[in-house]
Amino acid sequence: MIISNSRQVRIEWGDCDPAGIIFYPRYFAIFDASVAALFERVLGMTKYNQLKHYDFAGYPLVRTQAKFLKPTRFGDDVTIDTTITFGRSSFDIEHKLTLNGELCVEGSERRVWVVRNPATGAIRSHPIPQAVRDKFGA
Amino acid sequence: MIISNSRQVRIEWGDCDPAGIIFYPRYFAIFDASVAALFERVLGMTKYNQLKHYDFAGYPLVRTQAKFLKPTRFGDDVTIDTTITFGRSSFDIEHKLTLNGELCVEGSERRVWVVRNPATGAIRSHPIPQAVRDKFGA
Amino acid sequence: MIISNSRQVRIEWGDCDPAGIIFYPRYFAIFDASVAALFERVLGMTKYNQLKHYDFAGYPLVRTQAKFLKPTRFGDDVTIDTTITFGRSSFDIEHKLTLNGELCVEGSERRVWVVRNPATGAIRSHPIPQAVRDKFGA
Amino acid sequence: MIISNSRQVRIEWGDCDPAGIIFYPRYFAIFDASVAALFERVLGMTKYNQLKHYDFAGYPLVRTQAKFLKPTRFGDDVTIDTTITFGRSSFDIEHKLTLNGELCVEGSERRVWVVRNPATGAIRSHPIPQAVRDKFGA
Repeated sequence: MIISNSRQVRIEWGDCDPAGIIFYPRYFAIFDASVAALFERVLGMTKYNQLKHYDFAGYPLVRTQAKFLKPTRFGDDVTIDTTITFGRSSFDIEHKLTLNGELCVEGSERRVWVVRNPATGAIRSHPIPQAVRDKFGA
Repeated sequence: MIISNSRQVRIEWGDCDPAGIIFYPRYFAIFDASVAALFERVLGMTKYNQLKHYDFAGYPLVRTQAKFLKPTRFGDDVTIDTTITFGRSSFDIEHKLTLNGELCVEGSERRVWVVRNPATGAIRSHPIPQAVRDKFGA
Repeated sequence: MIISNSRQVRIEWGDCDPAGIIFYPRYFAIFDASVAALFERVLGMTKYNQLKHYDFAGYPLVRTQAKFLKPTRFGDDVTIDTTITFGRSSFDIEHKLTLNGELCVEGSERRVWVVRNPATGAIRSHPIPQAVRDKFGA
Repeated sequence: MIISNSRQVRIEWGDCDPAGIIFYPRYFAIFDASVAALFERVLGMTKYNQLKHYDFAGYPLVRTQAKFLKPTRFGDDVTIDTTITFGRSSFDIEHKLTLNGELCVEGSERRVWVVRNPATGAIRSHPIPQAVRDKFGA
C-alpha cells in the first residue's frame, strides 16, 4: 500500500539567491517538511508529539537524489506530492514538486527510523513500530 | 493610517536547533516573509511582480530589534501580526508573533525603499512611490 | 573585565537574496556562531562538549537589536568582533561586523544561561556557573 | 584532466536540528560553497567578479545525489574534497565530506553554465567559455 500527501508552499524572497531563483538546498528543507506533514496527517499528531508517543529520535536520510527540471522563484506557490513506501526499519519517499501543474523538481529519499541510546546519546536504526505501520496501512 | 496583516506559519523541525526550539535567525526570515505578505495583499501582486511594476530593488533593513519572550518549537503554528507605518523613503514595521494567543516574539524594523543604479548596479534609497502609498491609503 | 574575540567569515552566494546582497537573517546566524567561537576559545572546548561539561542547555536570546549600515555580498570576507559582559544568569554581547575596516553591521544581544528540567524537558534560566565565569576572568 | 579543491568547514549549532545532528539540507549549502571555492581558486577571482568577467548568471543544478554515511554535529570541523569534470555546457562535481579522515557524506552534482537573456531576464544554458576551460586546463 502506498500513502501520499500533497501540500502547497510559497517560495519566499529569502529562499532565493542572486540569480533570482530558489537556492536549491531550500528544496530539501521543503521536502523534509513534506515528510513531516505526511506523518502528521497519518499519525494524527505533530512530529514533536510523535517523538514522545513512539519513543524514537527521528528519521534521518541515508541517501537522496533530485532532478531540477525548471527553476522556481519568489512568489511561486508550488505543490509537493509526497509518497511513502515502507521497508522494515527504513522507508522510501518520492517527491514531485510542481508549479501550475508543471513538474519542476523530482526528489527521492531513503530514510531510516532511529532511536537514541539513553546512555551514550548515540542514534541507531530500529524497526519501524507496528503501531506506525498500522496507521499507514502498511 | 496604519495597515496590518496577519498570517500563520508552521515552525518546522529544520527551523529548530539542538535545544529543540526555533533557531532565532529563522524568526527574521519569518518576519521578512510577513512584510512581503503584507505588501502582496495590499498591492495585489507578488513581490516578483512588484519589483517590475514599481521599478525598485527591494526594501532592505536599516535596523531591527526583537524580544524573545517564550520559545516556540517544531509543530507550533504561530500567528504573525504585522503593522506598517510609512515615512518618506522608509517605513516602520511591527511584528507580534503569538502561539495560541500568547505573545512569543515582538519585532520591529525600519526598512528603506531602494532602487538600483542600472550603470553601477549599486542600490540607493528612493522616495516610496505615491502609487504604492495610495494603495496603502498612506 | 571584558572579553573579546574576532573571526572572519566568507559571505556565500547562498547567503544572498535576489537583490544580490546578504539576506539579513544570515547575519544573526553569523552572530550566533561568533558567540560560540568566543566561548570555545575561552573555555577550551566546543559547544558540544561545553553542554556536557557544564551541564546546561544553551544560551538562548532574550532580546537583540542590529543596525545595518552597509550591505555585504557574496565573496566578501567580513570580520566579526564579539565582546561579552556578564550578568548573574545572563550576559550581553556586542558584535561589530566590518568589511575592509568599514563598519557594516552592529548587533547587540542579551542571552540567558539555561538548564533543562530532566523530567519535563522544559528549559529555565540558571546562574552562570562560577567555573565558567572564572575562565572568562569575570 | 580533473581538478580538485579541499576546504574545511565548521558545523555550527544553527546547522543542526533537534536530533543534535546536522540538518541535511545544510550539506547542500556547504557543497554549493565548495564549488564556488574551487572556481575561485582556479579562476583567481570571487564568484561576484566571475559573473561580470565571464558574463554569465551562475551554474544551477540539473541533478544531484548524496549518500549520508555518518552524521556530523556542531563543533565538527569537516573537510570537503571537491572534484570537477567538464562537459560542453555542463560540468560534473564529486564531493567527499570527511571527519577525521572518515567518510561522512558523498555527493555528486551536474551543473549547467547559464547566461541571462537581458530582454526577458530568463536564464538558459550556454557553452562554458574557453577562457574558463583553459584556466582549469580542461
